[in-house]
Amino acid sequence: MTFPSHRPNPPCIVGIGETRYTRRGEQAARGEWALACEAAQQAARDAGVDVHEIDGIASFSGDASLPWLMGHALGLPRLRWASMVWGGGGTGACGALAQACAAVQSGQAQMVLVMRSIVQRAQARYGQAGGFSEIPQMDLLAPFGMVSPAIMFAPLFMRYLHETGTPREALAEVALCFRENAQHNPRAVTFGHALDRDTYLRSRWIAEPLRLLDCCQESDGACALLVTTAERAAALKQMPVRVLAAQQGGNAGWNAGGMGTHTMPAAQYGGGNSAQLADSLYRAAGVTPSDISFAQIYDHFSPAVLISLEDFGFCARGEAARFVASGQIHAGGRLPLNTAGGLLSEAYIHGLNLVNEAVRQLRGTSTRPVRDAQVGLVTAGMGASPTSAAILAR
Amino acid sequence: MTFPSHRPNPPCIVGIGETRYTRRGEQAARGEWALACEAAQQAARDAGVDVHEIDGIASFSGDASLPWLMGHALGLPRLRWASMVWGGGGTGACGALAQACAAVQSGQAQMVLVMRSIVQRAQARYGQAGGFSEIPQMDLLAPFGMVSPAIMFAPLFMRYLHETGTPREALAEVALCFRENAQHNPRAVTFGHALDRDTYLRSRWIAEPLRLLDCCQESDGACALLVTTAERAAALKQMPVRVLAAQQGGNAGWNAGGMGTHTMPAAQYGGGNSAQLADSLYRAAGVTPSDISFAQIYDHFSPAVLISLEDFGFCARGEAARFVASGQIHAGGRLPLNTAGGLLSEAYIHGLNLVNEAVRQLRGTSTRPVRDAQVGLVTAGMGASPTSAAILAR
Repeated sequence: MTFPSHRPNPPCIVGIGETRYTRRGEQAARGEWALACEAAQQAARDAGVDVHEIDGIASFSGDASLPWLMGHALGLPRLRWASMVWGGGGTGACGALAQACAAVQSGQAQMVLVMRSIVQRAQARYGQAGGFSEIPQMDLLAPFGMVSPAIMFAPLFMRYLHETGTPREALAEVALCFRENAQHNPRAVTFGHALDRDTYLRSRWIAEPLRLLDCCQESDGACALLVTTAERAAALKQMPVRVLAAQQGGNAGWNAGGMGTHTMPAAQYGGGNSAQLADSLYRAAGVTPSDISFAQIYDHFSPAVLISLEDFGFCARGEAARFVASGQIHAGGRLPLNTAGGLLSEAYIHGLNLVNEAVRQLRGTSTRPVRDAQVGLVTAGMGASPTSAAILAR
Repeated sequence: MTFPSHRPNPPCIVGIGETRYTRRGEQAARGEWALACEAAQQAARDAGVDVHEIDGIASFSGDASLPWLMGHALGLPRLRWASMVWGGGGTGACGALAQACAAVQSGQAQMVLVMRSIVQRAQARYGQAGGFSEIPQMDLLAPFGMVSPAIMFAPLFMRYLHETGTPREALAEVALCFRENAQHNPRAVTFGHALDRDTYLRSRWIAEPLRLLDCCQESDGACALLVTTAERAAALKQMPVRVLAAQQGGNAGWNAGGMGTHTMPAAQYGGGNSAQLADSLYRAAGVTPSDISFAQIYDHFSPAVLISLEDFGFCARGEAARFVASGQIHAGGRLPLNTAGGLLSEAYIHGLNLVNEAVRQLRGTSTRPVRDAQVGLVTAGMGASPTSAAILAR
């Protein structure tokens, strides 16, 4: 069975690569650039193409690895596309993939490297105050103590739990499921560190309702993938993974501000951009939620997974708690999620590692395989923040 | 006569806008964001579209106007594309245009705002040491006093003059021609400040062979344009300007480092990326240099115009001095250049104002009109630096 797409011969992902994933700071001595180059070389090796065939680079969120220096390091004879998606993880991973697809579809490049490299130094940790100092609205948020993503998102999550009557246990279901998946994945930073419910419940509060183990990791590492035309993909060694659709979403008014805008009207705070994006994405890909075999959901925080499940049409508003409690998100369930461990338990490479895991599922090489996986969803960001997502198919 | 393009129905520029252009610092109190929004609104008004129709934003070189905050300010109901071209002016203006075209061609957005807003504050002036502190190779250049673009590019220009036997007078021809054009353009910062050869020759050295009047201005202002599909363009009030081709260029080895890499091999230092890009650009557009009615050449420094004329096939290597001395670059000549005054004499909005002037020429609304202008070239960056360019047509 081949799933349709409104556009024939969509661009394909033909190679994936990554460095070692570690806890934050452990790869600081190598730096973002060296990690990015290593991941790029791995992706080329995986695809079976000469790294010199890369003629475009797409990344996001202020990646430190300037593309023309990447080109220099990799010896690229031609760099015809270099784009960065503005914004954080939300618009990022699938947005960069979307821009790589646009580069290929418009004929501006033929083999585009999508990459993200992160070294969380002491001075610029995403999880801490100051890590987002470049965001203009920080001036308005910091005086209220809203200085890190966990603190900024917490009120939105509290409101979701309150308004939908979602029990706190639903967060545990997500965190425990993803940690379990990571125990099958030697790349995961938490590999070998199984998690039980008691340990989860004893983990300290970061910002209610978020415990430490509801928050994604702070990681060092780089992740990369290669996008090319369907024609070129057909000649390469890996089974091509087709990008049926990849899009960014963002809208204005209350929904525009991203983190910290938890006072927005009820109809928008939960869904907002993601719900709007989901509709557009499914239409572009020519599939429905029932066609999706698995999903890699942006899990910077465990409640984001609940909201995303609703936004992307897998359950009605307020029903995500029941869905995750039913076991449907585990391996063998209706919709296995974050099968490599996700950002919570594999690593936080700003969401791009979720795309690589989706590719592995469709190739059949995941360490937590989903039987007969045909179509997968990857999301980046969630709810009302600027966001992006992609639907991939065998 | 309609000029061809290998792609039928290329994306079109349907609106242009800009703020007041001023000397650096004069609009610091308003800031980049407000200027960007004003330029965007002007472009929408010019196109005759509701500003809310904008669903994509493309900019470059670390523009401070984050797109989702732009979207908030402009009240955009949907922001489906937000890209930034990495790098400086070279990859920037036409690279952002190229990415807007890719967004439209791939169906990811329908009405893309291309914009650049600059306020040169005391702490971050492009023309001064420290303005480029984010560039990694600054660590290698600063110890040798290579702290600003003028100083970094000067050795490359000296080498060009030396190896081609180009007389210094050729630089004066460029600077004087563009200043003369600006005297017809009330938007130009130098409007009302005519320049004579003696004044030019008395202007102080910045870095030999560059006098003050060989260097572009440091300006405050914003500039914007709207790109949409040919279909949508046909329904709008302005005559659409077709983007026959818009591309980025960059290659590796000696050519990768951009500014400061004046020690590269002879065959590459002059042409390099631009010559390679020109070839690809003409092929994509389906035109040749002889089809080009006018050009807007990235004139951060006057000798860059000479090198670009050669790279883009208007004269043979070393022949640009004769070409500019012959008067061919003036209004009424074979190839009128920078008809609004360029970066030297209109304003330095990082090259995007050159695109707007090309649109005006093709619409017939330039203040220095080229008779029967059918096809125009716009370049950004030059020579061996990462670069971009576009070919536009009526």
